[in-house]
Amino acid sequence: MTAPDPQDAADADPALEPDVFARDCVSRPVLQNVAGRWGVLALAALRDGPYRFSALRRRVDGISERMLSQTLQTLERDGMIHREVQQAIPPRVEYTLTDLGTQVADQLIGLIQILEGNIDTIRAAQDAYHRD
Amino acid sequence: MTAPDPQDAADADPALEPDVFARDCVSRPVLQNVAGRWGVLALAALRDGPYRFSALRRRVDGISERMLSQTLQTLERDGMIHREVQQAIPPRVEYTLTDLGTQVADQLIGLIQILEGNIDTIRAAQDAYHRD
Repeated sequence: MTAPDPQDAADADPALEPDVFARDCVSRPVLQNVAGRWGVLALAALRDGPYRFSALRRRVDGISERMLSQTLQTLERDGMIHREVQQAIPPRVEYTLTDLGTQVADQLIGLIQILEGNIDTIRAAQDAYHRD
Repeated sequence: MTAPDPQDAADADPALEPDVFARDCVSRPVLQNVAGRWGVLALAALRDGPYRFSALRRRVDGISERMLSQTLQTLERDGMIHREVQQAIPPRVEYTLTDLGTQVADQLIGLIQILEGNIDTIRAAQDAYHRD
């Protein structure tokens, strides 16, 4: 973590605490990137350990090559994952969670477990809603 | 929560545990609904207590009337929130979290706090990424 340079400090009003409810807060798009459709699954998968691109694509069932590539770039840019090119022939590229990414992934996995563990309640609510 | 009726049981293979990584699992769209762009903010806001539509719209800065309406319908259908019409002139409609919605909202608030608390790390990662 580095101190923001003067230009960053000028962009972000230092008097404002980050607030995801404020439409222009930098935290809001980051929340979308980690909690969005594919970000959440990629982060949760990487909590198992490092993955290569093709293995990760098999794990995140249904994601296209293009979407996975875009998702990983965004997560790397936001400091959630680390992309490492290993010396080999052919070169291997591995993705791992950063410390921050690990904290975020743990929180997302907690969310997934709540949903998976309450799927009967959710199904019952959906049935009742459609019956009304 | 009610027991699934025979038709639901036939739709959902009882041998399969819910698995959000499986593309057809019913838990995957629910995850999207609660973690998606507006669902997460609506649920986190409702953790403060009941809201009426217009107050919730002010809290979730930037959401359109149509998107909030759609978000609330989806969250109600999935059993996350309860919509209550109160006897008054004019009638008041209030939204509250269900027990499941409260658990989900707590997990999402934990996620938001991690991101807001690490905004300097995130900004530094974004700067480093764009410099490369």
